[in-house]
Amino acid sequence: MRTARIVQGGRPLTVEVGPDGLLHAGGTTYEPDSVVFLPPVEPRTVYGLALNYADHAAELGLERPPDPAIFIKARSSLIGHRGEVVYPPGAEYCHYEAELAVVIGRAARRVPAREALMYVSGYTVANDFTCRDFVKNIFRPPVKAKGFDTFGPLGPYLVTADEIRDPGALRVSTRVNGELRQEGSTRDLIYSVPEIIEYFSAFLTLEAGDVILTGTPKGISHVYPGDEMVCAVEGIGELANRVVGEGGRTS
Amino acid sequence: MRTARIVQGGRPLTVEVGPDGLLHAGGTTYEPDSVVFLPPVEPRTVYGLALNYADHAAELGLERPPDPAIFIKARSSLIGHRGEVVYPPGAEYCHYEAELAVVIGRAARRVPAREALMYVSGYTVANDFTCRDFVKNIFRPPVKAKGFDTFGPLGPYLVTADEIRDPGALRVSTRVNGELRQEGSTRDLIYSVPEIIEYFSAFLTLEAGDVILTGTPKGISHVYPGDEMVCAVEGIGELANRVVGEGGRTS
Repeated sequence: MRTARIVQGGRPLTVEVGPDGLLHAGGTTYEPDSVVFLPPVEPRTVYGLALNYADHAAELGLERPPDPAIFIKARSSLIGHRGEVVYPPGAEYCHYEAELAVVIGRAARRVPAREALMYVSGYTVANDFTCRDFVKNIFRPPVKAKGFDTFGPLGPYLVTADEIRDPGALRVSTRVNGELRQEGSTRDLIYSVPEIIEYFSAFLTLEAGDVILTGTPKGISHVYPGDEMVCAVEGIGELANRVVGEGGRTS
Repeated sequence: MRTARIVQGGRPLTVEVGPDGLLHAGGTTYEPDSVVFLPPVEPRTVYGLALNYADHAAELGLERPPDPAIFIKARSSLIGHRGEVVYPPGAEYCHYEAELAVVIGRAARRVPAREALMYVSGYTVANDFTCRDFVKNIFRPPVKAKGFDTFGPLGPYLVTADEIRDPGALRVSTRVNGELRQEGSTRDLIYSVPEIIEYFSAFLTLEAGDVILTGTPKGISHVYPGDEMVCAVEGIGELANRVVGEGGRTS
């Protein structure tokens, strides 16, 4: 099943994605092109992995981490499909990062990798937008670089886990203004989805609704106000977001 | 006003702290020594500052950061007054960190320092418990070091902002097994409470209920299972938590 959250008449609605449109339990069907999307889930916490594809670590000139390089992304950064990413004034190194996002279905603590997928309720697409202007900090947690309001596009759909036979064999890509710029496969994840859940749940409790961004493959590049990013994960969806300047400027 | 959240008959209750005990709106008064405390607030996000006292940065052999060194603490780490902090097996460098915790009262975005305290609803005491065994990661966000379940004692009370004339003049201390080990004053914060709110709100939205841990002064030291930590902030409260081994062992 595929679900989305949309705003209709000021009200957030959860709808099911069907062949004829977005179906609300009340019986109304909405046309996907004419609605406002929210992120498909409201996570308590958004965890992320950095450098989880060896080819991407290499393009940043960084070594493959000996343990998962994990961070927490500010929840206030989340926006939905077709929401606008606001480019910070004076920034120069702003990059899309297409990622498979894993949604936790029930509390997970000390879960071995072989059982981990039982704790996944579904998947969606994330654009872990990052401005590398702000990672100079000696302490280096990318709270600011990844945490500006609007830097967390997520969606459009939550796809339930039963629809995805193997989260470790999905094409991940980004097109910018129609041009293919990033392409990889979750086959090349250094830490697989089950291993990531094992790692986190060894020391903390993953809660129902939490989201884990699994990392981005090679192919990041600069984007600027006016650019249209489409991040896609095979079988899960295409997440489109435009970059704008402050006040909505597109150049 | 001072409030706490306690568990009574399996139910979380918010109570007011009065001269005769903890008063519930229903009219019942509870004795503080005989109740189970929850964290006094349920934050969406717990932000923190590292190295925000120059004397503490020096004791870690680190330079004073040019910008606030910020991180996000896993929400699942939070526990209440008298909750037990579980010492990870094999760890060696586990430290209490007494801190003034600021509770945000309403959404704050682009708030100048001179107006920032208007966005604070109150204060509480935090023990930003940290095992430095887990900060080796090249990426260095202290998600694991500060994020184990139970590493986030908070409380006992939420003290409303009107009771604290100046959050920049409060003694902060920790006693371990009765011995004074850490002592400082928020007078020595590198970034003051208003400056911290200005910094965060320049790029993200601080939401009502969010908590900011403002950093710890000099005087961290190792603690072990069996140790009783009491972190105090002048005029706000004393937060007591025992360290235990896995399974509740105290040695």
